[in-house]
Amino acid sequence: MPRISKRGTLMPNSPIRKLVPLAEEATSKGRNVIRLNIGQPDIPTSDKALAAIRNLDTKVLEYSHSAGMESLRRKMVEYYKRHNIGVNYEDILITIGGSEAITITLLTCSNGDDEILVPEPFYANYYSFATSTDVNVVAISSHIEDGFVLPPISEFEKKITEKTRGIIICNPNNPTGHVYSRKELEQIRDIVLKYDLFLLSDEVYREFVYDGEEFISVMQLEGLDQHAILIDSLSKRYSATGLRTGALVTKNKQLRDTALKFCQARLSPPYVGQIAGEAAIDSSKEYMDGVYEEYLSRRNFIVKALNEIPGVFCPYPKGAFYVMAKLPVDDAEKFSMWMLEEFEYNGNTIMLAPGAGFYTEGGLGRQEVRLAYVINKEQIAIAMKCLEVGLSKYPGRIETASAKKSVLAAK
Amino acid sequence: MPRISKRGTLMPNSPIRKLVPLAEEATSKGRNVIRLNIGQPDIPTSDKALAAIRNLDTKVLEYSHSAGMESLRRKMVEYYKRHNIGVNYEDILITIGGSEAITITLLTCSNGDDEILVPEPFYANYYSFATSTDVNVVAISSHIEDGFVLPPISEFEKKITEKTRGIIICNPNNPTGHVYSRKELEQIRDIVLKYDLFLLSDEVYREFVYDGEEFISVMQLEGLDQHAILIDSLSKRYSATGLRTGALVTKNKQLRDTALKFCQARLSPPYVGQIAGEAAIDSSKEYMDGVYEEYLSRRNFIVKALNEIPGVFCPYPKGAFYVMAKLPVDDAEKFSMWMLEEFEYNGNTIMLAPGAGFYTEGGLGRQEVRLAYVINKEQIAIAMKCLEVGLSKYPGRIETASAKKSVLAAK
Repeated sequence: MPRISKRGTLMPNSPIRKLVPLAEEATSKGRNVIRLNIGQPDIPTSDKALAAIRNLDTKVLEYSHSAGMESLRRKMVEYYKRHNIGVNYEDILITIGGSEAITITLLTCSNGDDEILVPEPFYANYYSFATSTDVNVVAISSHIEDGFVLPPISEFEKKITEKTRGIIICNPNNPTGHVYSRKELEQIRDIVLKYDLFLLSDEVYREFVYDGEEFISVMQLEGLDQHAILIDSLSKRYSATGLRTGALVTKNKQLRDTALKFCQARLSPPYVGQIAGEAAIDSSKEYMDGVYEEYLSRRNFIVKALNEIPGVFCPYPKGAFYVMAKLPVDDAEKFSMWMLEEFEYNGNTIMLAPGAGFYTEGGLGRQEVRLAYVINKEQIAIAMKCLEVGLSKYPGRIETASAKKSVLAAK
Repeated sequence: MPRISKRGTLMPNSPIRKLVPLAEEATSKGRNVIRLNIGQPDIPTSDKALAAIRNLDTKVLEYSHSAGMESLRRKMVEYYKRHNIGVNYEDILITIGGSEAITITLLTCSNGDDEILVPEPFYANYYSFATSTDVNVVAISSHIEDGFVLPPISEFEKKITEKTRGIIICNPNNPTGHVYSRKELEQIRDIVLKYDLFLLSDEVYREFVYDGEEFISVMQLEGLDQHAILIDSLSKRYSATGLRTGALVTKNKQLRDTALKFCQARLSPPYVGQIAGEAAIDSSKEYMDGVYEEYLSRRNFIVKALNEIPGVFCPYPKGAFYVMAKLPVDDAEKFSMWMLEEFEYNGNTIMLAPGAGFYTEGGLGRQEVRLAYVINKEQIAIAMKCLEVGLSKYPGRIETASAKKSVLAAK
């Protein structure tokens, strides 16, 4: 048999999806698996998007322009304008989700064996996109014990080498909920300019920023026109992850022209996803406000519940819809598997995303899990009870010196 | 400004789409541009697919399984069974069009700087997929003067090196219309086994085989379970290119498991594309037969018309819906640009895909163009008149020793 590629072997299993076979098995045994592993909201898709799909009036479902439908790109300009982001439609390439926007940006900005800096923990698939484009991820670590505050900017600078091509930030951050302050962004900008790097800013959770934090887009930073790439997606905003409609936005024409060649190769984004995405941008204020309030309420609920479980620590995220929690276990992946394979409580169990997959280095995140609060509070309550009981029965439970008191006290 | 990547610079502009800006300009001047450049059929999408979209009854447009919806995969098993191809649903990974299936296969089978053999002329985007995965395309040339008969199998063997990881064939071939004979496929199989290579067979035009030729799938060849990868797409079959629903099919479990990791990274294929694709597989025999007859009739019409234009030569394609034609011009790309920039006839002009982009080597295909017969015969007739008049006025016209007589006489 011919051998599989090295990059295929190195490619990680998604920590978000690797336990799916175990969950399927648990389901087949009659257990109800509550899925906290994946950012798949239960919130109804914007009715504007659904109506556009049901009213589709074309006879031929055809390719669109490789850069995306012009009407969608122009509609996104309006959307950005409402968020004080000034771009032209030519600055926007429609991609197949935010995923493709990142992959194409990496292909455009870097060669094999180049390096990209990413604060960790990070959205696990960044590592996958880097592996598939032969780019090396160099992490700047933040820690749950510190509430995931960003390390000093000097830590970024220390890791820059001849091979560094750019920095990826996720703002608000998945999985930590960190929202970048103006000071942090300006420090990152200065480094980007000093070393002539690209700055990729994944802003797909822009709508979900809590506690009065100010959201600042990379496109609002001065002096970065040739360096900044905004990664976007309509998936989370309108609760329509299946659309696969995202965007790569940049003022850098050479970068855009190059990225377009990669877009041409895959012909076009999905037709219906673009039609529905364009309609979704007109979602009502009531819908958007309702979604926001629901996430905020769920966040408050799950963070409180987690911190009430003995031995569990969960800092307050300021944005997005995930929490990272530290568990009193030997290994959070083993625990997550055990919950699916061995555990049930009143017929229920839970599926978690093991934390180590959100870090590069072995060891970091080994006691952590990511939980997505994309299910309703009744379900979250059942899930938290499962977690509490599971932790009390899990054979690998260990007591750790908890950072809970000091961090929570500081709030 | 940070520099663009080498692979971004090397990435070719799609010959199928590179002239789009000139076409847009011609349109803005009021000219009617008849598009022969791209395989975008005017044929209505299967009504089963459209009905499934309009009847969508979900409240949340969610991610599907990264491997695709199980119901779609099972439906494809039925489809393949009708075509005497025996696979299980586990053998099928749903991809975002055939494009993604090829990219993921290259990532799974090869590392940077590895080589892949491809008979040329080939679907131009193979070169793009190879460039984006840092794989080198090694071509085995066939020639329009010979009616694109495949070179002897010894030509394949000569090009195999330590770095060769696989062979890509497109059957029926885009752009030549070549349909691989059993003898050719068995010879390729023997080489694949002898050198332990992967064999990628792009069979998206399976439905469109003419003149009683027999279509044989790579999945029907014995002994290739660990080597064969079927690349498929629902786009052309059901006239629904905007769905972006394709498949990577293989019996090789290790390859599939590795490919699934790349699928997980991009989360899932489009939701609506899968729902509509599943419905499309139940398209009526009347629809499928009607589409077939229409393409057959268009093929006969365009080949005859092309060969009647002085100095033009076009061999008969046996499958798919493209023709390659040799034109009496200095450079077919220059001619194609001239047609958009300088020419009109009764307010019309045509957009062609320059042939050189379907070959690797400089020079080959320079007098050729690819034309897609995906528009109706009335439009084709107007397009052929434009071509005839355009060729008679084009300043770079040259008379070439035509191979027309010998090849056509041999039929």
